[in-house]
Order: sequence, then structure tokens, then C-alpha cells
Amino acid sequence: MNDSDKRLDRVRGLARLPAVARLVDLALDEDLGRGDVTTEAVVGADDTIVRAVIVARKPLVIFGLDVASAVFWRVDAEIEIEAGARDGEAVAAGTAVLALSGPAGAILRAERTALNFLQRLSGVATLSRKFAEAVAHTRARVVDTRKTTPGYRVLEKAAVRAGGCSNHRFDLGSGVLIKDNHIAACGSVTEAVRRARAHAPHPLRIEVEVDTLAQLDEALAAGADIVLLDNMSPEQAAQATIRAHARSVLVEVSGGIDLATAPRYAEAGVDIISAGALTHSAPAVDLALDMLAAAGGAGA
Amino acid sequence: MNDSDKRLDRVRGLARLPAVARLVDLALDEDLGRGDVTTEAVVGADDTIVRAVIVARKPLVIFGLDVASAVFWRVDAEIEIEAGARDGEAVAAGTAVLALSGPAGAILRAERTALNFLQRLSGVATLSRKFAEAVAHTRARVVDTRKTTPGYRVLEKAAVRAGGCSNHRFDLGSGVLIKDNHIAACGSVTEAVRRARAHAPHPLRIEVEVDTLAQLDEALAAGADIVLLDNMSPEQAAQATIRAHARSVLVEVSGGIDLATAPRYAEAGVDIISAGALTHSAPAVDLALDMLAAAGGAGA
Amino acid sequence: MNDSDKRLDRVRGLARLPAVARLVDLALDEDLGRGDVTTEAVVGADDTIVRAVIVARKPLVIFGLDVASAVFWRVDAEIEIEAGARDGEAVAAGTAVLALSGPAGAILRAERTALNFLQRLSGVATLSRKFAEAVAHTRARVVDTRKTTPGYRVLEKAAVRAGGCSNHRFDLGSGVLIKDNHIAACGSVTEAVRRARAHAPHPLRIEVEVDTLAQLDEALAAGADIVLLDNMSPEQAAQATIRAHARSVLVEVSGGIDLATAPRYAEAGVDIISAGALTHSAPAVDLALDMLAAAGGAGA
Amino acid sequence: MNDSDKRLDRVRGLARLPAVARLVDLALDEDLGRGDVTTEAVVGADDTIVRAVIVARKPLVIFGLDVASAVFWRVDAEIEIEAGARDGEAVAAGTAVLALSGPAGAILRAERTALNFLQRLSGVATLSRKFAEAVAHTRARVVDTRKTTPGYRVLEKAAVRAGGCSNHRFDLGSGVLIKDNHIAACGSVTEAVRRARAHAPHPLRIEVEVDTLAQLDEALAAGADIVLLDNMSPEQAAQATIRAHARSVLVEVSGGIDLATAPRYAEAGVDIISAGALTHSAPAVDLALDMLAAAGGAGA
Amino acid sequence: MNDSDKRLDRVRGLARLPAVARLVDLALDEDLGRGDVTTEAVVGADDTIVRAVIVARKPLVIFGLDVASAVFWRVDAEIEIEAGARDGEAVAAGTAVLALSGPAGAILRAERTALNFLQRLSGVATLSRKFAEAVAHTRARVVDTRKTTPGYRVLEKAAVRAGGCSNHRFDLGSGVLIKDNHIAACGSVTEAVRRARAHAPHPLRIEVEVDTLAQLDEALAAGADIVLLDNMSPEQAAQATIRAHARSVLVEVSGGIDLATAPRYAEAGVDIISAGALTHSAPAVDLALDMLAAAGGAGA
Amino acid sequence: MNDSDKRLDRVRGLARLPAVARLVDLALDEDLGRGDVTTEAVVGADDTIVRAVIVARKPLVIFGLDVASAVFWRVDAEIEIEAGARDGEAVAAGTAVLALSGPAGAILRAERTALNFLQRLSGVATLSRKFAEAVAHTRARVVDTRKTTPGYRVLEKAAVRAGGCSNHRFDLGSGVLIKDNHIAACGSVTEAVRRARAHAPHPLRIEVEVDTLAQLDEALAAGADIVLLDNMSPEQAAQATIRAHARSVLVEVSGGIDLATAPRYAEAGVDIISAGALTHSAPAVDLALDMLAAAGGAGA
Repeated sequence: MNDSDKRLDRVRGLARLPAVARLVDLALDEDLGRGDVTTEAVVGADDTIVRAVIVARKPLVIFGLDVASAVFWRVDAEIEIEAGARDGEAVAAGTAVLALSGPAGAILRAERTALNFLQRLSGVATLSRKFAEAVAHTRARVVDTRKTTPGYRVLEKAAVRAGGCSNHRFDLGSGVLIKDNHIAACGSVTEAVRRARAHAPHPLRIEVEVDTLAQLDEALAAGADIVLLDNMSPEQAAQATIRAHARSVLVEVSGGIDLATAPRYAEAGVDIISAGALTHSAPAVDLALDMLAAAGGAGA
Repeated sequence: MNDSDKRLDRVRGLARLPAVARLVDLALDEDLGRGDVTTEAVVGADDTIVRAVIVARKPLVIFGLDVASAVFWRVDAEIEIEAGARDGEAVAAGTAVLALSGPAGAILRAERTALNFLQRLSGVATLSRKFAEAVAHTRARVVDTRKTTPGYRVLEKAAVRAGGCSNHRFDLGSGVLIKDNHIAACGSVTEAVRRARAHAPHPLRIEVEVDTLAQLDEALAAGADIVLLDNMSPEQAAQATIRAHARSVLVEVSGGIDLATAPRYAEAGVDIISAGALTHSAPAVDLALDMLAAAGGAGA
Repeated sequence: MNDSDKRLDRVRGLARLPAVARLVDLALDEDLGRGDVTTEAVVGADDTIVRAVIVARKPLVIFGLDVASAVFWRVDAEIEIEAGARDGEAVAAGTAVLALSGPAGAILRAERTALNFLQRLSGVATLSRKFAEAVAHTRARVVDTRKTTPGYRVLEKAAVRAGGCSNHRFDLGSGVLIKDNHIAACGSVTEAVRRARAHAPHPLRIEVEVDTLAQLDEALAAGADIVLLDNMSPEQAAQATIRAHARSVLVEVSGGIDLATAPRYAEAGVDIISAGALTHSAPAVDLALDMLAAAGGAGA
Repeated sequence: MNDSDKRLDRVRGLARLPAVARLVDLALDEDLGRGDVTTEAVVGADDTIVRAVIVARKPLVIFGLDVASAVFWRVDAEIEIEAGARDGEAVAAGTAVLALSGPAGAILRAERTALNFLQRLSGVATLSRKFAEAVAHTRARVVDTRKTTPGYRVLEKAAVRAGGCSNHRFDLGSGVLIKDNHIAACGSVTEAVRRARAHAPHPLRIEVEVDTLAQLDEALAAGADIVLLDNMSPEQAAQATIRAHARSVLVEVSGGIDLATAPRYAEAGVDIISAGALTHSAPAVDLALDMLAAAGGAGA
Repeated sequence: MNDSDKRLDRVRGLARLPAVARLVDLALDEDLGRGDVTTEAVVGADDTIVRAVIVARKPLVIFGLDVASAVFWRVDAEIEIEAGARDGEAVAAGTAVLALSGPAGAILRAERTALNFLQRLSGVATLSRKFAEAVAHTRARVVDTRKTTPGYRVLEKAAVRAGGCSNHRFDLGSGVLIKDNHIAACGSVTEAVRRARAHAPHPLRIEVEVDTLAQLDEALAAGADIVLLDNMSPEQAAQATIRAHARSVLVEVSGGIDLATAPRYAEAGVDIISAGALTHSAPAVDLALDMLAAAGGAGA
Repeated sequence: MNDSDKRLDRVRGLARLPAVARLVDLALDEDLGRGDVTTEAVVGADDTIVRAVIVARKPLVIFGLDVASAVFWRVDAEIEIEAGARDGEAVAAGTAVLALSGPAGAILRAERTALNFLQRLSGVATLSRKFAEAVAHTRARVVDTRKTTPGYRVLEKAAVRAGGCSNHRFDLGSGVLIKDNHIAACGSVTEAVRRARAHAPHPLRIEVEVDTLAQLDEALAAGADIVLLDNMSPEQAAQATIRAHARSVLVEVSGGIDLATAPRYAEAGVDIISAGALTHSAPAVDLALDMLAAAGGAGA
């Protein structure tokens, strides 16, 4: 193979993961699987090369450029794409985040699916940026939860990171989190922590969810590595943090925390604030595709 | 295994569609694919039969009970499920929408994925109900768009119907919608409508998007079956509707319409109001799984 | 491989759809999944570059060149392909519709699967052309039905269009067709049409199947947009058409219509003739792959 | 539904193969994937239990009952099915080959896909029966080829057997068939047979395609187990058969053989007649679904 | 749904995971996808109900009963299965680990695939048991690596646990393991640990691979939670362990450790011994299926 | 992206088969599906271009270079790969079988999966080479069995051939092998062979398994093409071979044959020796990836 023989396939990053490719397939099946009756009837096979841009209509943090590009290329590999921003970048209203050049019909068929990915994932990144900024004056980090759109976890968690927050465990297999039901099933916090330490994969810390300061003390005594304070007030959290930090134990808080309350927990000294809203309730941001003059045209 | 042990597959409705089954697979792969290290380490294979309920924490319109049930059954077919509400039903805070009985470990493994589907789809149904109610005093109907979560179109569109709104075209193959680019490509509205009528599948009406009253007149003259008024004010829409109805042509309005402005368009006499927000920005609703006493226990 | 002819991904058109890619995978799994024992044993890894053509043995309308090309490229991306005809073109016997150049072993492995797609889809296009020509002197159009080969709908419907006929609804979701069972379930034609108009997606016309002129009158009074006359004679159809056209209602006829009877219905003035035979009974057309002299050979 | 009739999973036979399940998925995706807008709008969720039969409209050999049943059960597992014939059985016009009982909406949604499979596969079985009968007075057997509908090989080959014919090799991996190109690539028939014997899996016989009697003699001398006479007349075939049988070598003939010419080859003494038409050009047979009175109804 | 309406589907445990179901599909495709020509030709559709047992020919630790059962049920849901041992159990030669009753043809078709899973996974469990016993007199645990059979990770890691060993990180996403390349890329161990602590998901410990005692000291100073000693002798490991334990840091050793050397490392005081051989080189164990007398037969 | 940026797909050979692509997807899902937390946290998106080699640590027969390359390209198409050996080649310790150049992060993410394929398949090829050499002084060939890793049959059988052994039937559909159960079901060896000859695809030879010389005589009289001697001693095999060869019948032996006993059977004159160990118990061979200096660096 010689040097010039470069790129097989321009899809990059997360969009190359088999699970993401399956999601893109589902999306194309559902929107394009029966063709585009309007374009076929009115325009025919529209192979005119056109230029278009995807533009942020409002200020936002962009995320999903790789996936959006992959959607365009799945529909037609001839489409040329140039990025005008990088994933995770905060862009002003009017910014062209992707510039496209390719057959008009293909760009129009892929447009909606590409935008649907982009506006959702950028919504997550944009909201994450707000949370990150809300606690930036403290040492706390805001993390996501497993309350993600089913099928989108790897994408939404990357959007969270791109927005400036951090990730909690990816799934049930990448973090030990002992809750009420586990404790009930094995008798005590102490026993639960002992079993976790004996049997769980050693690369994982042991986190214990506690509702009260009494439970906190039991968890600390049992040797938890992290305590998760569920639905405590910032004041209680501050008190709990002092006790936990005395034993070098990390403190996480959760329970309906929003942009208004996050700073109060952060200022209480906790290490980690988990917020389901980052992924389950981020509104879509406003992005649109604008067609430009046909490529090669006079003024182009 | 004894004779009585033969049962058929209980998954119902949309959850039986291959595309939905693929989405459920993606979701289970991502959350359970590596096991549940906490339960395995702390409790072991937890086959204790327990009872649990999924409860609405706030008033909401529930949707997705079939999919949520399918998630539980995919994880363990032994789980028994009884519905406490029907898809599309408005339930009060505290309502148990599903009652479960089955192995504790399986219920816990499936919990998050089932809830993630349910809280998102019920969010769409709940917002759709609000839109439907906002225009209930008129003859207008509110419809969705193609701005759905990629991979979720069949589910989200069903949630929209369950909430009391209607569906626009499902995809690019189930509706003719002539826009600027199509008109530009073939020269005129008249020619575009002629071609659509000649070549598109005859079960489809011809819809034309117009930005001005002049374009409206051209579309009406060309024989459009439906006109889509994009970004017009309610006043302009009222005027356009009079002209269109004089020719028995349906009128749709679109463009950032929200709960506040929808009634004004409806009162202007339009037939259809399309709102992307129904699917792209419906916040998740609050649902949770509560474990009850172990099944078969004394007082249970 | 020469430098000038390297493309990222040359698969085009329908062959890029995920559902078509899955069908191609099924086909390759079944024919090549265990290797080619003859070639491996007798020739070894046969990477000699050869030239070959796919030739029409009889006059036919070609369709499926994109899919056939995709099959070759799935087996070996090094194969170069040049089309000698365009999808939908009527070609004479002896026409080379595709010219191939590539490794002998790969071309032989892909040959049968590519031809199997091509001979079936071209069979549909060829029969469609005959139907289209049979009614060309009238304003009627011949359309397909849902009686397609399962898994092939998007391909066979495209072959029908390429042959010069039109498409009926793609699936159960892209057309409203009220039949006996629907009417029985809701009480009357009038009520069925009313409900369809109230609840079905607005981009869809309302079509009602009728067996008698009495039913026709009921459907017209109820406001149907299209009537489907099932198993009526051309004379009855003519009579029905007069009544329907008086109300600007489209008329479709169906029921075992063949090349001999289609013109009689067309001449009766109906708008649409649907024929299941277009897809369910089109015989395969005769195409074969001929190997030429080895590429680069003296006289080649 | 009575209690005794609930089965975990009733899909049987070929319909359980993963590749067939994938094909059924493709078929359901394409026809039901967007719902049934007519039934939903006009009837709602139609769970009335009805009875229906699938009836042969003409005499035919039925095949595909397992797959058709699987389609119904994939749409709704509550459907009860009783077979009125067995795969491979020749049935008279009017025979109810399947009797169904289940929710009306589900039966209607699955109807077309189930019939599409059944009418195509029974078409193959019916044509195969005719070929088998045409040579029944001889010791020849008629076999299929690899000219099958892509994705349908395992089904169509079973239909061929059900019709009374036999199967040639399943794919490129389950039979050694040395053709011109192989001989050209390795120099001589003798060398090609030697290599096949040395390297191909030992459970496979060595078959050599020959066009002339001179090639036949070379193949026999080389030790072929089977000779394939391509495009020879019945007279030539008779002569070739005498020579081949003298060496206990099987004789196959191929090349556009149809129902008229097959007996002449069979009477010439050949062992095997291969006919691509069995699978690539069998017309669909006529089957339809008739709804009966509602189950449990008075007169039912 | 009433009480008696129990099991939809008897597949349990890991065999229900989508990824495992896909692997089972691949396996059935490859062995059964073209039917069983011998049984079909010689016996026909063999629905005689027979009994059979899967027997351990040698002492072994059994694992994979759920997957093997799933294979049988995928081929025919009528097969009844009773387990004679539990996953993870050490069984004597001659033990019947599964007793089957069902159609002869189906059992024979599924036999090889079921055994292939069982003999491989039990091989892993059996070897893991030997490692576990080799260090049972110490507090060390033996863990697996990512050197698993591609596609089998979740199954092989479960077999390792069933054998009595433990799991290292499941994948690249469920454990932080800083190696040479990472350190080189960011300049120093200290900086690498700092970044991992700042950016990696907080439920994960920070593990650092070290080759020398100097590197060990640097890792300890940097605040590693775990150190991985690569290719050290037991004596070096002992020395390293003393230093690490002084800081409450866990010690793992790796590098070609086998059954002979594992106890020496364990006695040196290390916490964790990782051994790729557990999964990449465990020989298959000897299991076979024996047919018993036909069910219902006189003496049965 | 500029014009020169168009390239075709470099994946070759078996790695292009859909079933192998699915296996590679499963493997990437399981190892990379959640990202690489260490590299992301410590190094970030590491796009530094580096060079690396995959090196044989011990002498071995390499197999799987196409699949390993496919793994790298699936992770990142920018990776350049040059092979330093050919599949089936015996290489010395220290040989660089693949040389890689590409983004550091991508190479590290793909490393383990690529090596896992390579070390397993090369293990099969290496063991096959030993078997082939053990009988090289005779005319016997060693063949594999169906005791392969589920999902890996096409790969492991190719590795067997690459190692110098041959393949037995691929699956249940590509060889007739009559065993005890078949004979019991139809009454006698004679009848079983007669049915196989009448009904099985004619390209397949008829093989009969026999345990005793009496059964051998019956099989020979019945007209078997091949006899499989199960668990006979070399001496018995020699005797059986004389009788079989007198009738030009091939002789296969099976039953726990290893490297020590294979030559004794080969010297007894048998034609084929089947050995399950080739695939079910071949230990992984030792291969590793070594990073070289960064590409473009001074000394590079």
C-alpha cells in the first residue's frame, strides 16, 4: 500500500463505534427508508452539486459534529464536509458549524437526521456548560447519571464531557454503588462493603448511598471509598463532607439538583454533584441548514 | 421443567416492531452488557421474588408502558407485570402505573432502562396533551414534525397521538411537501405541483410551503391540496386561511409555535399547527420505581 | 490499482439504505459465507486481474445496477465497474450493462449474487415497461401493490418506477385505504371516512374500496378522495368513473388485471390501474457474466 | 384462547433460523414499521377476536406455513393458528391451508406479509411438483441451482424439496464444480481434478462442466465423479451418459431446460437435470385471507 | 394476566444479553444455516421425542449451562431441559450436567453448537478453579485480563468468576490503567495520576503499571490507588508490596504467571495476580451428548 | 477535505464476510464501546502519529492478518498497515508481522482486540502445522472437525488450511455423515445409505461412521463412499483400510488423536485423520504490539 492511499472512510471518533453505527442505521431507516417522494417526483435524481452550511441560530455549545458528518456520508460518500467549529466549542449565533458541498438530493435527504442528532447532543453539551460554569469557583465537579436516552449513552456522556462536566459510572458494570436494596439484602452496610471489596473488580471504588448522617457514619466506618448523600440539604451536605473528608472519603450529592442549587452544594465543599437533568431534560438547541448558491456558480 | 411451563410471548404493540426491539437491544447492551457488579458482589444472583411499583411522582400523561414492560421481560421473562394505567391516560401524582413482581436482581437491572424510556415518552405525551388542550376550543389540530430523537420516531409519534395531538408525515416517503429548494430546482410552483401530481404516489396529497401571500396565491392556483404557512403571524394566517378555504385547501402553520401562541393560530382558523417542540424539547417527567415488601411475605 | 480511480465508498443510491445493505449481507452470507471451495482448491487465491461484462441475453429494461455494483464492492473493493446502461434503460440483446475489472476470484465469488439481484429487479422493470406501454395512449397510470417479495419493497417499487409505472402506497403507514373490514368495524362508509379524515395524518388522501355502484355512491357522498373499484368490468368501471369524476374523485381499479385487460380499463377512463403481477409474478430476465481476456493482455 | 394452548415459542422449522428471522424482520420493518394508519384512524386498537382462513384460490402445492405462521406470531403472539395442510401437500382450490383466530388488528397488519411469503414459496413448490411429475417415469431427478432470490436460498431450496425435486449444492462452499475459468487458470481438466481431489474437503464429489464430448472424455479420464453437460441436446446427452455410466460417473444436464424438454433429457438416461427456472421464474400462486364471523359470535 | 401465565421464555442469565444472543445467532447460522442434510435425507423430519444427557467425560468445573440451554431452545422451544449441576460446580467424570427431552432431529442439530460453547467455557472455569486453589492458602486473588476470545468477554469473565477467580476491568471504559505510553505522552507519572484523578470517572481507582522499584516509588508518591508490577520476580514483588502496603496501596502482579509461579507471588503478599492464560489458553474440557432410550418407551 | 481524499475500503479476504464483520463488531462493542477512560483522561484525543509493530515473541505460524488489519481500520481508517509476513507463513521469534503507522490513541484502542484475534487464529495455524508435519511422510491428510469456537468457524477453518491441514465438512449442510442415531432411526446401514443416495444433494459423498469391522463390512456393502473409523487402534485401522481401499472407499479415523498418535494412523494407510484439538484446544501464541519512535521523528 503506498503513501497516497489514505483515507478509506472519513467517519471519525464515536461515530465509528458499532453501537453508534446501529443507531444511525435506525435513524436512516426511519426517515429515508422509503425514499424522498417529493424530491423524486419534483426534481428527479438531484445530483447538482450545491453548498450548504449548518448554522447555530442561537449561542450554544456544539457537540455531535462527527455523528452528523457520519449521517451525511452514510447517505452519500461524495459529500465534502468542513468543520467550522470543534466539538465542545461555545459558538455565537450565526456560526456555521459545518460547511457541506455535495449532491443536492443527498444533502436534503440527510439534513433532518443530521440536525436531529446535532440539536439534541448540543443541547446536552450546552446545558452541561452552564452547570460547569455554575460551580467553576469551587472544586466540585458536576457529573451525569444513567438517566440517559436509551441507546444514546456513549454519545450523551461524551456531550456532557464536551460541555465541561464529568461522567459518573457508565453502566451497571463500571462502578459499585451500594443502595438500600443491597444493604437490606445482605444485612448491613458493613457487610455490604465487605462483600463488595471481596468480590467486585478491584479497579472500582466502593460507593455507598446514605440518607442520614447516622448512615453516613456507618458507611464511613465500613470503609466506603465514596459516599453518596441523597436528597440532603446543602447544610447537611456540608456537615457530612467534613466527616467524610476527615477519612479521605469522597462526597457526592444527588437528588433534583438544578442550576440554582448546584452552587450551594458546591460551596458546601462536596466533591461531586450528580444531575440527571444534564441528559434527561436538556432542551434541543436551534440549528438549521441553509443552502448556499450552487457550487461553481458565478459568484461562488 | 414441567408441562404447565409453556407460555407465549407477552410483548405487545409497538414494542414488537423489529426497529423498536433493536433500540431496546441497544439500551440493554449499554446498561447491562457488562453485568451489575454491585448486585453480583453484594447480593449474588438475587432471585428473591419481590414486588415493586413504578409511580408517577407528578401529574403526567403516561406513555410507553408496552416498551417498559418489554424491557423488563427482555431482562427476565419471569417478571409479572400488571398495568395500573393505560397509555395515553392522564394520571395523578402517586399513581402506580405498573406493578411488578419478580426476581429482585432482574427488576433492579432493568429498572433504569425501563424508566428512561418511560420518562421520555411520557414527557412527549404530557406536552402533547397541553398543546391539544390549548386548542381544544377550536377545530385546529396540533401535529408533530420530523424533529424527533433519531431512532425514536415510531415511539415518539405514538406518544404524540396518545397525548391527543396528531401526526404529520412519518418520513420523507409518506407525504409530499414542496419547499423552496424544490421550486427553485424545477422553475415554478406551478410546475412543481404538476410534477408531484404526475409522479408522486396517488395516495399522497400535495403540500406546498409558502412564505408570503403572493406565494400562497400561486400555490392555490397551481392546485396544491395543502398549504404550509411558514413563520406567518396569526393575522396573516387568518387572511391566508380565508383564501385557501375558499378553494377547499387545507392550511397548516409552522415556525416556533409554542403553548402561548398555538391558540392564537387556532383561533385564526387554520386547520393544522405543527410544533417541533412536541418531540425535540419535551422535558422528561418524573417517574420512579419503589420496591415493596417481598412477595409472599407475611403481611404482604 | 491505478491512482486515478480510488473512491472512498462508491456504493450509490438505494444500495446505501441500511435495509438494502442488510439484504445484501443476507445474500452474501448464504452464498459466500463458507468460501468457494472450487476456486480455493483449484486456483488458490486468484488475484489475477481480469475483465468481464454483464450482458443482456435478450432485450430487457435494466434495473439494479447500483445494487449489483454494491455486491461486487462488498466482496472486493478493488473491483472497478463501469456502467454501459442506466437504470430504467431498455437495452438490446447483447448489451454489456456493466463492465468489470478486478481480481478473478472476487468477481467469480460475487457473480451469482449480483446476477440474482439484477435478473429479478430487471424482470420487474421489464414487465412494468410493458404495462406502461399498454396504456400509454390513455391518461391512466399503472401502479404496483404491496404484493412484493418480502424484504424487497424499496427495490421492487423503484424497479416499477424505472419501468415507467407508478407506485401505490409504500406500506400500511403511507396511505389510507378503507376496506370492508374497516367499514364493518365502524358501522358505515360515512363514519369510516369521517374518522379517517379526523385522525389520519393530513398529508394522506382517503381511499375507499367499493365492490358495487351502490357502494360507490356511498363513498362519494361520504367524501372519499379516491375510490378503488375492486373486480369490476371495464364497462362498470367506465360508469363508475363518470360518477366519480363528477365529484373530482380519483378512480383506481384492481383485481387480476393483466397486460391484455389493462388497456380496456385505461380506455374506460380510470385514473389508476393497480397490478400485483408487476412484482409478484415478473419472470427473471436473462443476463449473464462473460469473462474477457485478462486485463493488460496483448490485444486487450 | 384456552389455557391448554399457550406455548412459549411456537415458531418451528426453518422459521427459527437466524437468517430467516432477519428476513422476516426486514419484511415487517418495511410493511408495518410505520403502523397501519387506516386501522388506527378508523377502528382504533382493534382487539376484537376474529377468525380467518388463508385459502388456496387455485390448485397448488403449499409451502411456507411455518414462515407465514412466524409472521403472524411476530406481530402478535396471541394469534392461534391451525394448519389445514402440510408443507409440500398438493391442495385443491378452496382449501383452507391455515385457520387463524386472534385480534383483528394484528391479523390484518400481518396478512400481506404472510401471504407474500406464502404465495412466492408455494409458487416454487408448485412449479417443482410439475417438474418432478414430468420426469417421474424415469430415474432422473430435477434439481435447483444457485439462481435463487437473494436472501431466500434456504427457504426456496426447501420449497424445491417440498415440491418433489432435489437440491444441487447449497452454495459455493458445499460442492466442487469445475468450470471453464478454473480449467483455464490451472491449465487442464486433469490438473484441475487432481487439485480438487487434493485440496477440497473430502466429503465433496468433484463435478466438471463440459461442453463437448471431447471435454467429456477428458473429464472422465481425469477422474471426475460427476459431469455436467452444458447446453447439449438430448441426443448428445444420451451419448454422453453411456460413456459416463460406463465409468460409474453421474451425469447432470443444464441449460434452459423447461417442462417440455425435461422429459426428453430424463429419457436420455441422465441422472440429474438442473433448472434455474424452479426458483428464478416460478410465478406466485393465488392465496388469500378471508375473514370469518367474529369468534364466539352467535352463528359462529 | 393470571398467575398461571408464567414463563414466556426460559432463557436465563447471561444468555439473555443481546450481545450473547448475537453470538448464538452467529453460531447457529454457521452450523445449521443450510440444514442437516444427513438427517433430512436419512430420517426426514425427525420429531420422535427422545431423551439425552450431556455428560462430563472427565472431572471439570461446569460453566455455560444457560448458554447451552439457550442454544437448544433457539433450535426448538419444545425441548425440555433439566440441569444436573449448577454453573461453577465441580463435577465428577460421568456426571450428567444437562438432561434433555425433545424431538430427536432438533437435539441433534443443536448438539454440536451447545457442546462447543460448554466445553470452551467450562475449560475456562476449570482452569480458573485450579488457579484459585493454588493461592487459596493466601489472601491473594487471581484475576483475568482483557486477553479474551473476541466476542466472548462477558461469558469468559463470568466463567472466571464461576471458577473462583475474580475479574480485572471489563474493558477500556471500566478501569484506569496508566502504562508507559500514557506516561510518555504527558511527561511524568505524577502528572498522569493527577490528570486521571481530575478527569476520569470518580468511581474508578487509579492503577499505574511499574517495571522497577524506582517507578514504584514514583507511583506511590503520585498517589496511585493500585500499582501493577509487570514482570517482577516474586522476591521483587515482595519488596514492592511492603512499600505499597505501607501506603495502603493495592499491589497487582502480571507477566506470564502460571499455575506453578502463582503461589510464589501469592506468598509474597501481593493482593492481585493477573493471568491471561485463564482465558486465552484454557483447553476445552471433555463433554459429550449421549442419547438415551426414546421417551415414553417401555423401559423408559 | 480535499480531492485527493478519496479511498476505497482496504479490508480484504475473510474479514469482508458479513459474519466476520459482525464478530468484529461484537469484539469492538465489548472492549471499546465505553471509550478508553485512561487515554481520554491522561492524554486526551491522542492524534499523534506513531509507528508500531506487532511482533511474534516465539516461532509460530501466523494467521489472521486480514482480520487484525480490519480491526485497526474499523477503529480508525487513517491507520496505515504494512504486512511483514503472509497468512500461513512460519515466522521466527522477533518477526514483525504487521507494521502500523497512525494516531496513537486509535492504535492503542484497537491493540488488544486485534491481538486477541491474531493470537487465537495463529494458535490454530501453528498447531495445524505441527499436525501436518507429523504426517508429512505419508499420504494421509489431517482435517478439522465441527468442534470450533462458536462464531469462528470460517476463520478457524481457514487457519487450519493455512497451517497445512485440510477441512472436513463445513457444517451440517455440506457433508453427509451417517452415525448410529441415523442408522437406528431407519433400520440398517444399507437403508440409510440408500436414502442418502436418493435424497441428499448429489455433490456430496456418503460417509458412514463405524465402530467395528463388522459394521465396516456392512457399510462397504451398502456402498458408502467414505468410512469413518471411530476410536479404532492403528492396527485395526490398518486392517479396515485394506478392506476399504479394495473397494476404492476412502478411510477416515477419529477419536482423541493427538500429535503422538497421528503418525501411527497415517502410517497405517488411512486417508484422513480428523482432530478436534486443532480448533478446540490450540493454545494462544505469543504476539505483542511494540510502539516505536513517533513517526517523522529524527531517527525515524
